Amino acid sequence: MSKKYLSEFLRNISNDLVLKSSFVKLFLSMKYSYLFIAFFLLSIVSKAQQTDLMPVPASVVMNKTNFRLSPNFSIAINGQADERLYKEASRFFQRLSERTGLFFKTWNVTIKNVNPLASLQIHSNKKGIVQINMEESYELLVDDSKISIKAETDIGAIRGLETLLQLIISDEKGFYFKGVTIKDSPRFAWRGLLISQPYHFMPMDVVKRTLDAMAMVKMNVLHLYISDDQGYTIESKVFPKLHQQVSGGNYFTQVQIAEIIQYADQRGIRVVPEIDLPGHSTAILTAFPELASIPRAYQLQDHWGVFDPTVDPTKEKNYVFLDTLLTEVASLFPDHYFHIGGDENTGRDWAKSIPIQAFMKEKGLNSTVSLQNYFNKHIQSILKRSGKTIVGWDEILMKKMDDSTAKAHFEKGEFEQLIEQEVPKDIVVQSWRGMEALLSSAKNGYKSILSKGYYIDLVQPTSYHYLNDPIPFRNKVITPDSEANLNRFESEIIKKIQNGEKILTSKEEELIIGGEATMWTEHVSAETFDSRVWPRSAAIAERLWSPATVRDVDDMYRRLDIISLQLEWVGSTHLKNKEMMLRRIAGVENIQVLENVIDFIEPVKGYKRNAANNFTKYSPYSLLVDIAVPDPSPLRAFNKLVDSLIQQPTAIQIKSLYRQLNFWKSNHQLVQAMAVNKPLLATITKHSASLNTISNYTLKFLEMKERLQIPAQQWMKEYMQVLNESMRPAGYCELLIGESLKKMVTNYK
Amino acid sequence: MSKKYLSEFLRNISNDLVLKSSFVKLFLSMKYSYLFIAFFLLSIVSKAQQTDLMPVPASVVMNKTNFRLSPNFSIAINGQADERLYKEASRFFQRLSERTGLFFKTWNVTIKNVNPLASLQIHSNKKGIVQINMEESYELLVDDSKISIKAETDIGAIRGLETLLQLIISDEKGFYFKGVTIKDSPRFAWRGLLISQPYHFMPMDVVKRTLDAMAMVKMNVLHLYISDDQGYTIESKVFPKLHQQVSGGNYFTQVQIAEIIQYADQRGIRVVPEIDLPGHSTAILTAFPELASIPRAYQLQDHWGVFDPTVDPTKEKNYVFLDTLLTEVASLFPDHYFHIGGDENTGRDWAKSIPIQAFMKEKGLNSTVSLQNYFNKHIQSILKRSGKTIVGWDEILMKKMDDSTAKAHFEKGEFEQLIEQEVPKDIVVQSWRGMEALLSSAKNGYKSILSKGYYIDLVQPTSYHYLNDPIPFRNKVITPDSEANLNRFESEIIKKIQNGEKILTSKEEELIIGGEATMWTEHVSAETFDSRVWPRSAAIAERLWSPATVRDVDDMYRRLDIISLQLEWVGSTHLKNKEMMLRRIAGVENIQVLENVIDFIEPVKGYKRNAANNFTKYSPYSLLVDIAVPDPSPLRAFNKLVDSLIQQPTAIQIKSLYRQLNFWKSNHQLVQAMAVNKPLLATITKHSASLNTISNYTLKFLEMKERLQIPAQQWMKEYMQVLNESMRPAGYCELLIGESLKKMVTNYK
Repeated sequence: MSKKYLSEFLRNISNDLVLKSSFVKLFLSMKYSYLFIAFFLLSIVSKAQQTDLMPVPASVVMNKTNFRLSPNFSIAINGQADERLYKEASRFFQRLSERTGLFFKTWNVTIKNVNPLASLQIHSNKKGIVQINMEESYELLVDDSKISIKAETDIGAIRGLETLLQLIISDEKGFYFKGVTIKDSPRFAWRGLLISQPYHFMPMDVVKRTLDAMAMVKMNVLHLYISDDQGYTIESKVFPKLHQQVSGGNYFTQVQIAEIIQYADQRGIRVVPEIDLPGHSTAILTAFPELASIPRAYQLQDHWGVFDPTVDPTKEKNYVFLDTLLTEVASLFPDHYFHIGGDENTGRDWAKSIPIQAFMKEKGLNSTVSLQNYFNKHIQSILKRSGKTIVGWDEILMKKMDDSTAKAHFEKGEFEQLIEQEVPKDIVVQSWRGMEALLSSAKNGYKSILSKGYYIDLVQPTSYHYLNDPIPFRNKVITPDSEANLNRFESEIIKKIQNGEKILTSKEEELIIGGEATMWTEHVSAETFDSRVWPRSAAIAERLWSPATVRDVDDMYRRLDIISLQLEWVGSTHLKNKEMMLRRIAGVENIQVLENVIDFIEPVKGYKRNAANNFTKYSPYSLLVDIAVPDPSPLRAFNKLVDSLIQQPTAIQIKSLYRQLNFWKSNHQLVQAMAVNKPLLATITKHSASLNTISNYTLKFLEMKERLQIPAQQWMKEYMQVLNESMRPAGYCELLIGESLKKMVTNYK
Repeated sequence: MSKKYLSEFLRNISNDLVLKSSFVKLFLSMKYSYLFIAFFLLSIVSKAQQTDLMPVPASVVMNKTNFRLSPNFSIAINGQADERLYKEASRFFQRLSERTGLFFKTWNVTIKNVNPLASLQIHSNKKGIVQINMEESYELLVDDSKISIKAETDIGAIRGLETLLQLIISDEKGFYFKGVTIKDSPRFAWRGLLISQPYHFMPMDVVKRTLDAMAMVKMNVLHLYISDDQGYTIESKVFPKLHQQVSGGNYFTQVQIAEIIQYADQRGIRVVPEIDLPGHSTAILTAFPELASIPRAYQLQDHWGVFDPTVDPTKEKNYVFLDTLLTEVASLFPDHYFHIGGDENTGRDWAKSIPIQAFMKEKGLNSTVSLQNYFNKHIQSILKRSGKTIVGWDEILMKKMDDSTAKAHFEKGEFEQLIEQEVPKDIVVQSWRGMEALLSSAKNGYKSILSKGYYIDLVQPTSYHYLNDPIPFRNKVITPDSEANLNRFESEIIKKIQNGEKILTSKEEELIIGGEATMWTEHVSAETFDSRVWPRSAAIAERLWSPATVRDVDDMYRRLDIISLQLEWVGSTHLKNKEMMLRRIAGVENIQVLENVIDFIEPVKGYKRNAANNFTKYSPYSLLVDIAVPDPSPLRAFNKLVDSLIQQPTAIQIKSLYRQLNFWKSNHQLVQAMAVNKPLLATITKHSASLNTISNYTLKFLEMKERLQIPAQQWMKEYMQVLNESMRPAGYCELLIGESLKKMVTNYK
């Protein structure tokens, strides 16, 4: 290592860091990695002036006072409130006690707690009802003498309690709440998370801790996806064959469904069920093959994908069956909305069936879409009798057409041409295909919610989801980032917006009522579910709650690291199961050397894992790819560090890079030692070897640059090859430091 | 640091360690702690020749073959088996897949799997019934071509599957089972774990993962403690006020009780309920004050301890009530045993009641014990009608008398004088007071199970529980270790045994049918429950399953570290919640520097935490004392290292001590930096400061010794004071390295 840098570095310490240099010197004397130090320092830098809240409230005004916590802290509830507020206030008390270690006399907040001198005064004007457009606004005031939460309903008050818990901070004297005046209400009414149960079943404890975490970030819809080709996952009393024969043993009883709904209701969260029809129905057809479009030996799928089995929409007796079933399911879920799926019907079984083809001819239904529409109308009238509004995926509204036709219609403003005209207006479209559906449905007076861009199962970076706005049709919120992952049609729209066109009227915009993160569970187990959902969904929750102008990615990531810990404290296993699973593949307790590698690895994104077609319901979801998480903080920090070298690097930045590269080199030897006779460490060893090789080349490169030497062309070629090689997936995992290093090498000054 | 030692150390490396010196050099070049290195090395030392099984089977013969695992691995079940074996074999398949990363075609083992060429052939002669004395024996054979498990019942086969999972090992070619012939059966029929629900309620997921872990170590009784002064924790349909008003909102529905029993049954585990009567009954009396011995404003306790409220045993209508209640509870639990408590009746409320006193006079009942006996007989006859045998704590059998009277009777062989003569013979005594009760009940023909010495809530070292034999009345198994924690009476017995007396006949010994670890939940939350139960209970499980001669403490600890990881993989949170809770008190993700301290800290033992009387149902169980665990491996390793210095120390041992002491010094500075503005880190910082001071003194001491200097008397006094001070509890935690260092200082050569 260059002596020159070291001395320059030591001279510069006080400029570079907010801390006393003695600590920095101490760190440097210990052989920790750069990133360990960076995170350690971060943790002890006071951020008392910033708001760490996630989601960011509509309005925050900090004041200079603090409310000091003591064992005498007390809560009073006034006005009208549902029982749920008393329970949530008691849970707040328990969490406060756990977080602060304070010994309160009791955690119980009951109807009797109305002491006007209580520290926290909660006022709720009326009992809330957990349903669409529920009133969630609140005002929170903290000063040095009191705290108050005022809300129109107890649901708003519960949102306020979650905000308050995020305001806890401490100093040498103890814990306190930061002084603040917050006026808050959500931007969108529908802020959901979908859990698909048929692929990998998420049992009660996973569902409950997910609801706890959702409540923390103010999400308000749990979309419970019940039925698919791989299983039917709730008890049916009218057709018990469904849970007895085609659940694979994994289902919720009706009592448990009630328990989930009650648990969600307490937290101000709706539960919307989905029975996917007429496709995605192998489970139902395995139990009741007489409903199928064609005769076939039906059996539960254990693979992932889109399959042909489809309910026959032409038989009247099928509607009798579905009436009985859907009416039962509808009766279990009090919410007014009911999702009927409607996606990915291949149409192949309908095409194969002579009676169905004859039926279509007779009725003048000239396409799969028309026939499905005929089916949907029946289903809708069934559910209407149960008082339900139906929700469906894009396909229940959108015509099938190619991009150029769509574009042509769009350019002529013929939005009515893009949709099926006979679809009744009182449905909600959930868009998995994107802007085209959102735009067309809004233009035609349909309500919609966005899911494209919120597919968290595809393990994409948080920033991608964060910048994905449900209403991108407004000039001011378009950014280059949100243009990633657009289809051609969407790009056209973006161009129009950038040319100053106003795409939707305010009234049309109001029809876009929210969004939903979708956790499709093909490639997760109950062990890994949390690390796919959290903390990334907290950023989606912010997108849906906070003002559209809150879009600072760096600040989002800063706050995401904070909320990530808090999510753990309400039960999420996204951090602790990483460690457990590393211990399992290593067979030893201390896995720090492996963490030093996995911190820079991500699972392959999108549908790459499906492409291999290796995975089924009986695959091990306990491998490196299942342990790695999208955009881990250390990876982001490292790439940021490298990027900084392209600008004007400080001595400490250069020193930090040296340190990290040397650290990887020695860590690799420990990884190799640990990996002896451990087959499940082969993949991580491979990535560690890449880090080792990259480190060797990069250190050499930096030294040559420092000595003003010009690297040989052949050597540079090798170096580039090393960087390119390192980015090739191994074990469905990617090591993603190559791009930033390539950029640095190209631009290094 | 002494250069002399360093060079000597490097010369000696190859003698000291089994590994190539290059790795050792590598380690030494990195500033890890001694203990990190020790554990790391341990993990890569092959132990293929030893059996790691816990509990150790009755007979194990290793052979040199190995059965290689491949994706084609398959399981066939022959003979007669309950459905539970198919489910457990499928669960075995899933766990095997998770552990090995192998992609099997399916995990499902059904009645159709009878392929004679399947890799694992399971044969069960008949369906087992999960009840006392169930048949649990099995034979397991592994060679290079096949694996077979043969058992009299499917329950035995399930025990064999757990053993097989512990035989997985790997090398560079992949995973395999070690070749072995095992013939195994339990030493004791009753191998239980008690969970008390009224203090801190352990919800369904905790109970389920506890059952999974129990099955792993072949425990077979879950003792569900339902009712106490702090709550009544199951649904009652006959008296719904019990769960509605005095459960504190925490109870299992009857459907959930059935779910627990079914879950346990699948794993060959009985569930025995306990309704503690006539004392420990504040919850019942709060709901039904008319049952009480004296009028009083009854309300649920939120403190811990022994309280006066007691059911009135003189009113006939109370037995009508209890008949209705106990008959309902009995109907929920299929097991033939029912625990009625009977402990810690203070008798004070009975003494205060004029009608009760009059009743006693009338009936000639001249003591609390006699009156309680009158009560017990009623309860027993009620439960007999439900087909139940009753179990009770010592008090239901033993007379109350002082030690000297007991001793006198004992010396004269008057065992019948020690017990209440009118107690029917068909009860089981659960002994929490110890040897006296065991001995007396056996001598008088009563069955008994031991719990004294298995009170895992008292956070004592594993070795203490491990050496605590339910039948200590045999010369060969008495060791000095097991003499710890004896009362005077017990010491007398031990002396007799050591003088060669045979205390119990073989027939009497057979009346001691097992033992139970008791997890009283005053000082645990659902977050910390697992770390109080595991891995220590695995050692108790071994005591109760394995031959009495299996008593090697070092080997137990070696295997405990292995089983500890495996317990985590079936869901126990004892390792991962430690990390989560450290993150919570620190408010940062990377808490390695804190782990470096907590690894040497233990919670205070016994009832010291109760003494403070600070703790209630509403206390935070999220503090350092709740994170620390009994006898952590690093602490044991350090004390062992120091002990070795008293013998003939090797250079590497001396070097290791230097390294560890220096490591603590620098780590302390990081702890201090992290603790700024973190009130909940005050306690750990205090202990870290002790480590720092101890390190300074000890390094100085070692250096003086090395230079053959004699430390000044005053300085030595200070040093001793530092060591003594360090052992004083802070925050209910003890730092326990002082004793070994004091011994070293005194004996250092």
